[in-house]
Amino acid sequence: MLKISTRGTEMPASPIRKLVPYAEAAKSRGIKVYHLNIGQPDIETPAACLDAVKHTDLKVLEYSHSAGNESYRKKLVEYYSRNGIYLTPNEIIVTTGGSEAILFGFMACLDAGDEVIIPEPFYANYNGFAIQADVHVKPISSSITTGFALPPIEDFEQAITPKTKAIMVCNPNNPTGYLYSAAEMETLKQLALKHNLFLFADEAYREFCYEGTHTSAMHLKGAEQHVILMDTISKRYSACGGRIGAFITKNKTVLEAAMKFAQARLSPPFYAQVLGEAAVDLPADYFDTTKKEYKLRRDTTVQRLNAMPGVFCPNPGGAFYAMASLPIDDSDVFCQWLLESFSHEGETVMLAPATGFYSTPGLGKNEVRLAYVLNVESIHKAMDCLQAALAQYPGKTI
Amino acid sequence: MLKISTRGTEMPASPIRKLVPYAEAAKSRGIKVYHLNIGQPDIETPAACLDAVKHTDLKVLEYSHSAGNESYRKKLVEYYSRNGIYLTPNEIIVTTGGSEAILFGFMACLDAGDEVIIPEPFYANYNGFAIQADVHVKPISSSITTGFALPPIEDFEQAITPKTKAIMVCNPNNPTGYLYSAAEMETLKQLALKHNLFLFADEAYREFCYEGTHTSAMHLKGAEQHVILMDTISKRYSACGGRIGAFITKNKTVLEAAMKFAQARLSPPFYAQVLGEAAVDLPADYFDTTKKEYKLRRDTTVQRLNAMPGVFCPNPGGAFYAMASLPIDDSDVFCQWLLESFSHEGETVMLAPATGFYSTPGLGKNEVRLAYVLNVESIHKAMDCLQAALAQYPGKTI
Repeated sequence: MLKISTRGTEMPASPIRKLVPYAEAAKSRGIKVYHLNIGQPDIETPAACLDAVKHTDLKVLEYSHSAGNESYRKKLVEYYSRNGIYLTPNEIIVTTGGSEAILFGFMACLDAGDEVIIPEPFYANYNGFAIQADVHVKPISSSITTGFALPPIEDFEQAITPKTKAIMVCNPNNPTGYLYSAAEMETLKQLALKHNLFLFADEAYREFCYEGTHTSAMHLKGAEQHVILMDTISKRYSACGGRIGAFITKNKTVLEAAMKFAQARLSPPFYAQVLGEAAVDLPADYFDTTKKEYKLRRDTTVQRLNAMPGVFCPNPGGAFYAMASLPIDDSDVFCQWLLESFSHEGETVMLAPATGFYSTPGLGKNEVRLAYVLNVESIHKAMDCLQAALAQYPGKTI
Repeated sequence: MLKISTRGTEMPASPIRKLVPYAEAAKSRGIKVYHLNIGQPDIETPAACLDAVKHTDLKVLEYSHSAGNESYRKKLVEYYSRNGIYLTPNEIIVTTGGSEAILFGFMACLDAGDEVIIPEPFYANYNGFAIQADVHVKPISSSITTGFALPPIEDFEQAITPKTKAIMVCNPNNPTGYLYSAAEMETLKQLALKHNLFLFADEAYREFCYEGTHTSAMHLKGAEQHVILMDTISKRYSACGGRIGAFITKNKTVLEAAMKFAQARLSPPFYAQVLGEAAVDLPADYFDTTKKEYKLRRDTTVQRLNAMPGVFCPNPGGAFYAMASLPIDDSDVFCQWLLESFSHEGETVMLAPATGFYSTPGLGKNEVRLAYVLNVESIHKAMDCLQAALAQYPGKTI
């Protein structure tokens, strides 16, 4: 009997996508499903970006440079400098989504059996990339009661072993929406310097900060050789399908290693680089409009959730996610039940069970992640569904 | 001191791309460089494909399905059935180039320390994917004297250990251009069945066969559970920059494992799926024209090479590569010298040293790979350069 690999077996199914067949079944029964389960914004991709692709004039769709088109990397330098991040085009490797940037970071900095410390709950696919790279994720638990603030430094110190090579932070955070303060980022920097660790920073949601300002890991003075920035245009310009991200570091040795992984896969996709290049020239107020819209959605979501009996949702400072604890027995069961056995006026809502975002077994069992990526009217309808569902759900705890 | 990973250090630089800085330097000195070093065709991407992208009408550039757009996978079913390969859309995972299909195959079927047998010389980036997956490549040497035909079955039998999990074949072959016969493919099938191995088939160049017909691994009866097809539209439609490929198998367990890797990276690039979908509707004679052009280029290349003193180039049956042995001491030194120290009427030629395609040290030292991706006039000029270079090169052996 032909056997697949152990890592193929152990690789977790995406907690965000594993409920998809149930959603499809619900739709085929004629039920409208509000998708708050996945960070797929309904915000229109800027027309100027889509037009840039339409007006691409080429005869041969050639490989890009393995690090991405030089013209795009030059534009990115401009974009980052507006965010107080000063780079040269050679410090940027354009990647196939943020996903590839994360994989390159794991591959270039860690060996099989090495450890990366990540505050949990964390973006579930970090687990998948860790399995691909044969790297161990050591979670440090943050709690909904503190709004998912950075756990105490002692927790990190205790988790560090001779195998620890990196700390990873997503800021603003997916799935919690937590926006790390400048002081918290400074704490992480000190840890990285003291223990000689890489600091991986996933800043996919940089622009979406509703309270306070964003501190990039690239702003941390004295940590230049430690910081790897993993970025993507997916959420920034609502261009998830383009699959363009970036791997950025001032550490030349890391950059050269990552470049070899980039060369092996030849080049990032061409068209979305054109889109990304045009995006840098969007009007200065582009993010203001988007941010205002997301803030309204956040406020609506949080307000509606906290008004439901037994529900608690801390106010997230950034990104477009919120975590809520619900009066339920098991979020995996509940989220499936929402799709399989429930409807409210012919509609239901799809949520992501929080268990998939925790690495420690048992955590997140009564929590869900909501991506407030739909317009306010849809959010209200989705909340109506959730409210009705919590009253009916057989596994409710109040 | 912060250290990168061992795999980051051991990862080979692309032998095809590592000479790029020397080519850039040559160009900045005003020298025209004929690029026969890389499989980047000058063939125009079909206008209908480029137009399909231009006419894409969407408001939000959303994630695709992790397995690729269903409409595209349905079209691919149509494409493959024309090639005697009968699939359902669910047996296809659309990947980011053929590169990702190879990586998924290694990850899903092999664990760290497992072995894959590959006839050498082979596509150099297989090494890079093997290092990422922590898998060992066991080369079986094929020889220029037999035109790189499949090595004797005994060589395979001897190389098989308890760690061996797969045999990999690229047909038609990159870098040799060799087209494996139906009998040779049958031999590989028998090996896979006898020793319970996966059979990985890279068929990127399926359409480019000049002598005889193509036998796909998917044609092999009784090996359905063993075969993984790794494919790409890059060369087929001269769409290298799109980054769209496919991972195909009838083995459900493998497919499910690969799907989890696909989910972790969310989705393949959107635009090139549109391009690939349009490509399936190209006129039936599309490949005839392209093939005729490549055949002319091949004939020109092979004829010119074999007319040079001390040069031998077997006639390749497919793809758009040729391997030639040259009367030189060291192909790495020679290829760099061509760019650094040589010019002929203000021009030079860039070739790929064959050493990078062999895994066994010392092999390929007097061989180069030529990608006949330029028009016949350019090929003649490139051959003029090579001829002049061989007469002048300080390390010549005749």
